[in-house]
Amino acid sequence: MSKSLPKRSENYSEWYNELVKRADLAENSAVRGCMVIKPYGYSIWEKMQRALDDMFKETGHTNAYFPLFVPKSLFEAEEKNAEGFAKECAVVTHYRLKNDPNKPGKLIVDPEAKLEEELVVRPTSEAIIWNTYRNWIQSYRDLPLLINQWANVVRWEMRTRLFLRTAEFLWQEGHTAHATREEAIFETEQMLEVYATFAEQFMAVPVLRGKKTANERFAGADETYCIEAMMQDGRALQAGTSHFLGQNFAKAFDVKFVSKENKQEHVWGTSWGVSTRLMGALIMAHSDDEGLVLPPKLAPIQVVIVPIFKGEEQLAQISEAVAPIVKALKQRGVSVKFDNSDKQSPGFKFAEYELKGVPVRLAIGARDLANGTVEIARRDTKVKATYAIDSVVETVTNLLEDIQANIYQRALDFRANHLFKVDTWDEFLKIIESDELGFISAHWDGSPETEEKIKELTKATIRCITLDAEEEEGKCVLTGNPSSRRVIFAKAY
Amino acid sequence: MSKSLPKRSENYSEWYNELVKRADLAENSAVRGCMVIKPYGYSIWEKMQRALDDMFKETGHTNAYFPLFVPKSLFEAEEKNAEGFAKECAVVTHYRLKNDPNKPGKLIVDPEAKLEEELVVRPTSEAIIWNTYRNWIQSYRDLPLLINQWANVVRWEMRTRLFLRTAEFLWQEGHTAHATREEAIFETEQMLEVYATFAEQFMAVPVLRGKKTANERFAGADETYCIEAMMQDGRALQAGTSHFLGQNFAKAFDVKFVSKENKQEHVWGTSWGVSTRLMGALIMAHSDDEGLVLPPKLAPIQVVIVPIFKGEEQLAQISEAVAPIVKALKQRGVSVKFDNSDKQSPGFKFAEYELKGVPVRLAIGARDLANGTVEIARRDTKVKATYAIDSVVETVTNLLEDIQANIYQRALDFRANHLFKVDTWDEFLKIIESDELGFISAHWDGSPETEEKIKELTKATIRCITLDAEEEEGKCVLTGNPSSRRVIFAKAY
Repeated sequence: MSKSLPKRSENYSEWYNELVKRADLAENSAVRGCMVIKPYGYSIWEKMQRALDDMFKETGHTNAYFPLFVPKSLFEAEEKNAEGFAKECAVVTHYRLKNDPNKPGKLIVDPEAKLEEELVVRPTSEAIIWNTYRNWIQSYRDLPLLINQWANVVRWEMRTRLFLRTAEFLWQEGHTAHATREEAIFETEQMLEVYATFAEQFMAVPVLRGKKTANERFAGADETYCIEAMMQDGRALQAGTSHFLGQNFAKAFDVKFVSKENKQEHVWGTSWGVSTRLMGALIMAHSDDEGLVLPPKLAPIQVVIVPIFKGEEQLAQISEAVAPIVKALKQRGVSVKFDNSDKQSPGFKFAEYELKGVPVRLAIGARDLANGTVEIARRDTKVKATYAIDSVVETVTNLLEDIQANIYQRALDFRANHLFKVDTWDEFLKIIESDELGFISAHWDGSPETEEKIKELTKATIRCITLDAEEEEGKCVLTGNPSSRRVIFAKAY
Repeated sequence: MSKSLPKRSENYSEWYNELVKRADLAENSAVRGCMVIKPYGYSIWEKMQRALDDMFKETGHTNAYFPLFVPKSLFEAEEKNAEGFAKECAVVTHYRLKNDPNKPGKLIVDPEAKLEEELVVRPTSEAIIWNTYRNWIQSYRDLPLLINQWANVVRWEMRTRLFLRTAEFLWQEGHTAHATREEAIFETEQMLEVYATFAEQFMAVPVLRGKKTANERFAGADETYCIEAMMQDGRALQAGTSHFLGQNFAKAFDVKFVSKENKQEHVWGTSWGVSTRLMGALIMAHSDDEGLVLPPKLAPIQVVIVPIFKGEEQLAQISEAVAPIVKALKQRGVSVKFDNSDKQSPGFKFAEYELKGVPVRLAIGARDLANGTVEIARRDTKVKATYAIDSVVETVTNLLEDIQANIYQRALDFRANHLFKVDTWDEFLKIIESDELGFISAHWDGSPETEEKIKELTKATIRCITLDAEEEEGKCVLTGNPSSRRVIFAKAY
């Protein structure tokens, strides 16, 4: 047996890093800052993709694919965006390697194969896509244009962590164009709600829906909406953003349409994205010191059946008893694995599937066979009980729903217990400097300078102004200046 | 109405280029050699992906994701492969742009942000993957390792054509490791058969299964298997390859395992891939002068219903009559579009859906309503007929199956009529220089020089030695030297 994970309470950060590796989710690669997403991790990502993609399609979007490379000049065309992103990125300058004439077996960049214009590996695709939309949009009949792309993007991050911050990551980016401001805002809000629904109903992670302050806004956006999730260490993780772009990109790339009233107008835009960062959120929101805890809706294996046997004959008998259960569960769309391998002991398997976060484990041995029973263990609460074999399919089906609901509720309770309403700077400091972090709901005077000062003093940032924030007279927690609503502060990933 | 397509008989190449653009499949981008895959084209690719992915999973494979970049030194590690690919590729040399101090609003490469080691944008992932497998494989228990990746790759092509040859393209690449030579060969052949099955049953494109000659083999492989399809101009298109890698990559990257007999051995490898090139094959195999002809199994819209109406009231009546048909078809898993837009005339819509290759078109007007009938037109044969409205669901369901079978049969017949058994060089030249190209089955003496000479003289290459080729005494069509089996020559894409 491999040694146990670091404990969350002792070293949350190390616990995360080790869990990602030991549960076979991802690992660092030979390329600085780039990760390998291993099969088990990727199968969770695939489930996320499928669920999100279905929701995008239900809301009228289609997928397309745009080039990996963005010519440097297109970045220049949208200066604000360039300010935000283009700086730290992978730049292709040459298109050929050649044999090193001085060192056999070695390759060098061929100086004769220098590109006339450098190409940037996309850090995001607004530039290349809006440059394309110019040709796709002529009339109001071409609107709305509702397109999504699943792609890899690269941002040259200096300090990286698996899933949370990597140089290359996988994501989807929606890019839409509309005839009116109202339609674009509707779209921005709709997609935020799609993300929130996905986070809550599939990932079982409750999120705050809000808007970013001007400081934290995407450089090319008029308004950035976000969903913010709380991790078990009380830190915030931005789990998705949806940007109302106004006419910024339309103007930068000259994207106009002829309206019903026969007038030339710039279109209104949105963009929205979630990434493999969601994997980090999923892991950190639910898992425990024994390993992953996965919500059934995203678990690659929802139910594992471990036979406890001595010799072929017992295994054959158990297999026979198990076969109808496997079949019935599969018919209900449950993914089941019957692990009949004789390479590992049942105890080893139990620990392995616990580490991998399989929501439900069935164990069945000779005595169970004789009694017509099965032992069923749930991963989230670790409660085990014995059931009549006839009732297993029903029990397991209900259990999966119950686990999905339970881990959501647990995360919701955790957040409620770590949401601090704070009215003085002393209280603010006490929380932000403690080990028991959380979201701080406090008044802020609305000035970027105050926001910056608080960040400097505490490393806490304004995560969002929640969409449901009520008007409330108050005084800024730092300056005492008047404020009309609370915002959410937290330390963040 | 836009002007009609070029005719295949007059300019096949232009017909293809125009069709790809007009049917909204893809277009060239601002980045040299890179394409934009438009929503309609991408939705076909998604159907291909889904079908292939299901087949990969059924045969025991899982997906994973490896980095976009390959450090230069990893290419050097596998010299043969480097010979084959590493030369014409996108090379990342820097990781930052900065504002041009001399030209406001312009960006330049930051000379201080030069990478210590250049990164190549993957042209294929053997190097990065085998470098990773070294750490994943210790014992025979870790084998077989059966992994697939869906990814973008880049090869710096000088002459590009949409889908057929682009600098960036989308593909899947399977990379597997096995304990024995026999298992690896079994895998190589199994995946070739998966590709052949997909081509024939989904794309409705018959393919020859064969092996490449040493000249045409993937540089890192001991044996390259391929499927070869015939386009309507008689040219061949390599639609997929499956490589038996022997122990080449295992040796280059030092990937060893401890066998059951407790001996250290190098593993045996395979790799296999298909790409967005399949889109080119699909288009060129079936389509006609009016537009795309899509096999129902890959058509994003399988059935379109066009109402022929004057005014809202007629449309409402037709909509009511159509609703149960739409519902019943959807319940059978048929994708249906009811195009009730009043922006275009029925005639315009007919032409548009013909261009887009929608397999079945229903038209229904006031007279049909009165008579209880619907007009059904099939795209492949252009045959139209009137049916009782009650029989529509059944008729359409059968028709979809019939169209799938018919276009396969048509392609099969076409190939049979363009497969020429040739025994003299004169005959060979006559065919290869004619307008009526095809596959030439001829004897070849097995020497790379002869193969090269024939290519030089005629531009025809050996597409493959078919797996079912029978032993047959003969003389090489060029040299007259003895030969023991026929091979397939053709001009190719």
